[in-house]
Amino acid sequence: MSVTDELLANNAGYAARFSGPLPLPPAKHVAVLACMDARLNVYGALGLQEGEAHVIRNAGGVVTEDEIRSLAISQRLLGTREIILIHHTDCGMLTFTDDDFKKSIQEEVGVKPAWAAEAFGDVDEDVRQSISRIRNSPFIPEKDSVRGFVFDVATGKLNEVIPR
Amino acid sequence: MSVTDELLANNAGYAARFSGPLPLPPAKHVAVLACMDARLNVYGALGLQEGEAHVIRNAGGVVTEDEIRSLAISQRLLGTREIILIHHTDCGMLTFTDDDFKKSIQEEVGVKPAWAAEAFGDVDEDVRQSISRIRNSPFIPEKDSVRGFVFDVATGKLNEVIPR
Repeated sequence: MSVTDELLANNAGYAARFSGPLPLPPAKHVAVLACMDARLNVYGALGLQEGEAHVIRNAGGVVTEDEIRSLAISQRLLGTREIILIHHTDCGMLTFTDDDFKKSIQEEVGVKPAWAAEAFGDVDEDVRQSISRIRNSPFIPEKDSVRGFVFDVATGKLNEVIPR
Repeated sequence: MSVTDELLANNAGYAARFSGPLPLPPAKHVAVLACMDARLNVYGALGLQEGEAHVIRNAGGVVTEDEIRSLAISQRLLGTREIILIHHTDCGMLTFTDDDFKKSIQEEVGVKPAWAAEAFGDVDEDVRQSISRIRNSPFIPEKDSVRGFVFDVATGKLNEVIPR
């Protein structure tokens, strides 16, 4: 039995307890952008319920073109107004460099990615970088509440990063 | 009190019950790529626990360059081997076209996004498109288990999309 099949079996239990449908726009008008890390349960860590917030996630919780796309759709079409950014301690993105990662891919498959891997050396600084990228995008209309946090994987606590 | 502050207050309760840290690599060796929709609680719908799976999310649950980046890091550096794609019924991406969305931005702020908005007209077909994009990427080594599903926001059930 694959892990996918095991998780599908879990879904049957979830559906049995499920009550829907809820409205499409997020009830709390907030979008969360977080790292994909397995230890970061965004719904749990923020006490979110179904229907309340958009959740965008990627390796590092960084802001690239695709996160600007998602945030633009979130705010412009579905009415979110606040943005919460979440990086975390012990992040995999701290363990490699873009150059080494891309070189290893090139050596193995013969093609070097044309994209940045977005590795970083300092979590707080990368949260500030994510805030800066959002503030500098013309496509994100609501920038009054863009706040960044580091989730501590040892304690479960969110610590705010103060922009410089 | 902002919604962000309200969710931060929730975090104090989560941290009080939290037990960590867990290991960095996902225990179930699986990466989930899902839509950012507020009604889709990935941890809940799949019965996931903290530490088990990477969770990648964006508007639509589509596969662009940034999702290839995240999946490449997930598989190559952190050992995931299965990919679960999740779109859902009543998706916001069905409600507009790329052309209209980008034109409205251009008219409002004077700049037309250089990126695709990735709107789609058929959920099942877009799940198949996401599978195809992953299968066609040289940067994703593990493609034996790439399966796609549509989450029903009325019932909470995941329905598998069979590739053509």
